[in-house]
Amino acid sequence: MKIEKITNTILLFIMLTFCATSIFAQVVEANLNLMPYPEEVKISDGQFKLNKEFTIQLNTEDEKVYKAAQRTIDIIARRTGLFFKERSPIPAENAGKGSVFIDTKGTVQLEFKIDESYSLDISQKSVVIEAENCFGAMHALSTLVQLIDSDEDGYYFPCLTINDKPRFPWRGLLIDVSRHFEPVDVIKRNLDAMAAVKLNVMHWHLTDDQGFRIESKVYPKLHELGSDGLYYTQTEIKDIVKYAEERGIRVMPEFDLPGHATSWFIGYPHLASAPGPYTIERLWGIFDPTFDPANEDVYIFLKAFFEEMSELFPDEYWHIGGDENNGHQWDANPEIQAFMKENDLKDNHALQNYFNERLDKILSKLDKTMVGWYTDEMPDLSKDYIVQAWKGRKTLYETAKNGYRSLLSHGFYIDLVQSTEYHYLNDPIPPDSILTDEVKERIIGGEATMWAEFVGPETIDSRIWPRTAAIAERLWSPGKINDVKNMYERLDKMTIQLEDFGLTHIKNIDMMLRRIVGDYDVATLKNFVNAIEPLYTYSRDRPHIFLSHYPLSRIVDIAQPDPRLPREFSNLVDSYLKNGSHEKAGKIKELLELWHGNHKKLAGLIKVKPILKEIETLSADLSKCAAVGMKALEYYVQEKKADETWVKESNEILDAAKKPRGETELSIIEPIRKLVAAVQ
Amino acid sequence: MKIEKITNTILLFIMLTFCATSIFAQVVEANLNLMPYPEEVKISDGQFKLNKEFTIQLNTEDEKVYKAAQRTIDIIARRTGLFFKERSPIPAENAGKGSVFIDTKGTVQLEFKIDESYSLDISQKSVVIEAENCFGAMHALSTLVQLIDSDEDGYYFPCLTINDKPRFPWRGLLIDVSRHFEPVDVIKRNLDAMAAVKLNVMHWHLTDDQGFRIESKVYPKLHELGSDGLYYTQTEIKDIVKYAEERGIRVMPEFDLPGHATSWFIGYPHLASAPGPYTIERLWGIFDPTFDPANEDVYIFLKAFFEEMSELFPDEYWHIGGDENNGHQWDANPEIQAFMKENDLKDNHALQNYFNERLDKILSKLDKTMVGWYTDEMPDLSKDYIVQAWKGRKTLYETAKNGYRSLLSHGFYIDLVQSTEYHYLNDPIPPDSILTDEVKERIIGGEATMWAEFVGPETIDSRIWPRTAAIAERLWSPGKINDVKNMYERLDKMTIQLEDFGLTHIKNIDMMLRRIVGDYDVATLKNFVNAIEPLYTYSRDRPHIFLSHYPLSRIVDIAQPDPRLPREFSNLVDSYLKNGSHEKAGKIKELLELWHGNHKKLAGLIKVKPILKEIETLSADLSKCAAVGMKALEYYVQEKKADETWVKESNEILDAAKKPRGETELSIIEPIRKLVAAVQ
Repeated sequence: MKIEKITNTILLFIMLTFCATSIFAQVVEANLNLMPYPEEVKISDGQFKLNKEFTIQLNTEDEKVYKAAQRTIDIIARRTGLFFKERSPIPAENAGKGSVFIDTKGTVQLEFKIDESYSLDISQKSVVIEAENCFGAMHALSTLVQLIDSDEDGYYFPCLTINDKPRFPWRGLLIDVSRHFEPVDVIKRNLDAMAAVKLNVMHWHLTDDQGFRIESKVYPKLHELGSDGLYYTQTEIKDIVKYAEERGIRVMPEFDLPGHATSWFIGYPHLASAPGPYTIERLWGIFDPTFDPANEDVYIFLKAFFEEMSELFPDEYWHIGGDENNGHQWDANPEIQAFMKENDLKDNHALQNYFNERLDKILSKLDKTMVGWYTDEMPDLSKDYIVQAWKGRKTLYETAKNGYRSLLSHGFYIDLVQSTEYHYLNDPIPPDSILTDEVKERIIGGEATMWAEFVGPETIDSRIWPRTAAIAERLWSPGKINDVKNMYERLDKMTIQLEDFGLTHIKNIDMMLRRIVGDYDVATLKNFVNAIEPLYTYSRDRPHIFLSHYPLSRIVDIAQPDPRLPREFSNLVDSYLKNGSHEKAGKIKELLELWHGNHKKLAGLIKVKPILKEIETLSADLSKCAAVGMKALEYYVQEKKADETWVKESNEILDAAKKPRGETELSIIEPIRKLVAAVQ
Repeated sequence: MKIEKITNTILLFIMLTFCATSIFAQVVEANLNLMPYPEEVKISDGQFKLNKEFTIQLNTEDEKVYKAAQRTIDIIARRTGLFFKERSPIPAENAGKGSVFIDTKGTVQLEFKIDESYSLDISQKSVVIEAENCFGAMHALSTLVQLIDSDEDGYYFPCLTINDKPRFPWRGLLIDVSRHFEPVDVIKRNLDAMAAVKLNVMHWHLTDDQGFRIESKVYPKLHELGSDGLYYTQTEIKDIVKYAEERGIRVMPEFDLPGHATSWFIGYPHLASAPGPYTIERLWGIFDPTFDPANEDVYIFLKAFFEEMSELFPDEYWHIGGDENNGHQWDANPEIQAFMKENDLKDNHALQNYFNERLDKILSKLDKTMVGWYTDEMPDLSKDYIVQAWKGRKTLYETAKNGYRSLLSHGFYIDLVQSTEYHYLNDPIPPDSILTDEVKERIIGGEATMWAEFVGPETIDSRIWPRTAAIAERLWSPGKINDVKNMYERLDKMTIQLEDFGLTHIKNIDMMLRRIVGDYDVATLKNFVNAIEPLYTYSRDRPHIFLSHYPLSRIVDIAQPDPRLPREFSNLVDSYLKNGSHEKAGKIKELLELWHGNHKKLAGLIKVKPILKEIETLSADLSKCAAVGMKALEYYVQEKKADETWVKESNEILDAAKKPRGETELSIIEPIRKLVAAVQ
């Protein structure tokens, strides 16, 4: 218990310290809490005061702008508690009465490469938003709500001028709803959050071996037999697509083919390259079931299915998957082998190319442009085809050089629970790029990918947010906006603003801890969780996890990727070792004492809550590491060197503590190692 | 900051103390965390151990039981982190393999007065559930998940035998979605929570002056013009009704008539008793717009509308409202006056009876039985009519004596943010009742009413839960289960279990505090919020609040009804003054010091967060009251009497602190007053 207080104190101190001492990146204006950071910001003096008279005045009859303005008013009212006299936007006919004026030049359909630019001019008297179309205006409103600030005189927007437009036209988030299904409200709140950080594509991974998640009226056995009853009705799909469009977000469906297709074959086994029967896949990985490209019925089926689906998804782009086809079924099927010979298809790649060409023909007639995952041999398709690079950055450049447009997802695999910094610095076109302008032009953006092996409705938000906000900035903002420290400062504020949309990425932490502890007081367990992180996903315990029914309520599910306290502890240690102060030493000591004393308290809880058993020794190791850190700090403060034996033993303790347990690991070892190194 | 730690410590101490010293009510078995408490529980020795082999075996093919069993398995897996080999229930054909056996005798339609009884027999080897039908079986499963416990050897169910059935057949929750709309996911999570505490009726208040919340295809202007776009589609209604039915919950719609009807008249003004035009009502209260009972078109309209709606709501019961018709439009309309003369209707009550009789005829043809709010003169309707008593308990008895069935809602108005204790002791038929058995039989139950003037999607859960769980117990459990202290002990655990369904009643507190503070660290503000409660709703600041657009994000919205810490503080003081111990004095002192020091810290935050301005002096008063308490405690510990002047001044401070601010009030004054009284 005691410790909770200390953590709080320290957290605040650290933050105050950082705020006071931080040197902002040259390109980012001090104290502007914007993410993604705009292309151009000019700060001027003064404030636009928020009070009861606040209104938004529209010069457009676009319903989308009206609704976005209404949402903006609602957010401002909630944040400020102000009781606006006018709680709805004022339409064009009552001109002149607004505080915020929104001016859009025309209306456009939401599609790839529309003009998303806007300007935002805040003076003491008014706020003026200008944009080519409603989508730019909505971006301006997202920027505006990030600017709400307050002082002793009230809430306000700071006076400034922003001119802004995206660096890349395709800024996406893939949500896999096949491995674990996500209900409509989860999708909607994530769409709101996407809009808040100016992402503009939801890539919806709707089918895979583990589930077929969309209702088909033409082939009802797809969702009836392939989903465990967990699928979106067509009504829900339409509703979500409209919801997304109203927020400037295109929805691109993915029907993964020819592999990753088990869930199709439960109802329709004749489409597969082996006879079946099939059942919903319960494991994760790459599986054999694959569409039969030699079977004309497959194309008849897919044509009718795509026609049905194309009514639901108005966007031009259509993802056909195409990844991880192991070819086993093709190799084993004599008819397919005969077909390949007949058609002079020398290997499985050639056969998949043939299959893709057939899909391309079907989709072209529906005015759809294909998007697919990078495969080792590029398909021989029209240059309209967009390739999504996931195996490595160089595939991004290869495909762009080959004349295809390409999207970066390598480095944006948020399901792997890597650091925000890593994703943030994953620039699709780094400053030192030697690509020609023509090739650069074909790199159209990127997508964060929320693969869902290890997330469910309770945890998905915390795996997407806040890290994806930094990816959104990478894809929207100029490449020179890349100061990591400043990004984290803004992210720590943005993550709280994202809660406005109902996201559970912060609030479910305590909820899930309460489920384990069974009472309100989660402090001791939280102290431990705050010092760890989930293991890098590809390192997780495979025999253990490879089943879709795994409960997602353990400590590994509660622990946060790129956790804040260890990051702040690490910064604190670095800063202390660089220009030590008594105050910083005190803060380091407090944290170390917190961790050192924590296991003793937690051990009692672990005894009676068996779900915690798996992290018992990790908790003990946290205390041991902290003890090492305390001793090292003591030497350092006293300007003494530690003896060799102690250093050796301490490093052994730290090494042993690195071992993951419960599929989590301690995140505070390296800074302690630095303290040890500093006294050896 | 410092203080947070102390609170945590104290909370834990208090709880441990209470657990150790509490004398359980005679009728409630120690340590059984059940709510509502069953009619009959026999505890035996031993445990049914939960492990990976756990399964649920069904002897029924009822899909509802299958789904409920699946949900049960999911909850157990989440709570325990166990990785069950079988994650789905085992159907009847594979008999003999289960850990839990569910046996239902037959299938029934969900309707009023079905048999909801069940038995649950837990031995070391198996769990046997027997029930007449699927709905009893579901109640048994709700009981079962409440029994999950753990010790050093793992998770388990305690061995016991339960025989259980409800005291009242009608146990409802009214949700008003007119004053503030509630999205589908909010309704669904509340249905899950209702099922968890064995409530069986959702009374859905779908229309009122402030909004018409259901799609009508026959009269589309109802929802198009009457809802601000916030309504349920018919698809959503069907989905929710099915969702409720799968959880044993009947859905009774309410279309409030003839008053509370403004939202109908925006699209169809000819139905009203005055010409209009009408707009959606933005204020709260009682308004003039009323259906015209003298207009035959009204009945034609309502007949067609009710026919359409009856397709969506399969339940026999249909609420026609009938409350708060002020009669102004009737009085002012000469045609209505003429009609009354013609038909010998002597006053507005008679006219409303006439109207109700006409409705009754329409609804009878649709096989619907009318339910209505109590009005001062009872309608002359068939004895099938059910009357909902809201103006006072005696109307419950009057109507039952008059031969009608009646439902108690007076005393269950959860929107008024009263104490759980008050609601819990509001027995529809108290032990000393002198009613005859025949009359008692006509008292069929009650309903908690969540009127929505001051709740939105972010706050509604915290106004319903956990208090409604205690109301559910009042309506389900035998009347002799009425020990308040024991109820609170169980409620404090139940409230955390309710979070399993996604309820936000706990987790949105910190989220809303973070919105204000703009950071993770909400400790100081939370210390204040933990010591206050929202003002009794009818005492709220009327000129201020009477608009539907009021932001629901202020401290009054975050503060909890019947807050836990003040309750525990009060118990602690009572217990200390009764049989004082040094330890208790220490705990009281710690809490008082926490509050005493809090304002100094909070004042800085209030300065820069203007939304907090309204509670500034209340926060100061909290500190002043705490100082009084500290001094009184000091006298008491030293066994000294305080001098008269000090007592007078102290009481003046306490009196002044009682004044509500920001529509909230301090909840810790009375225990401090007791300390003062003890030394005077």
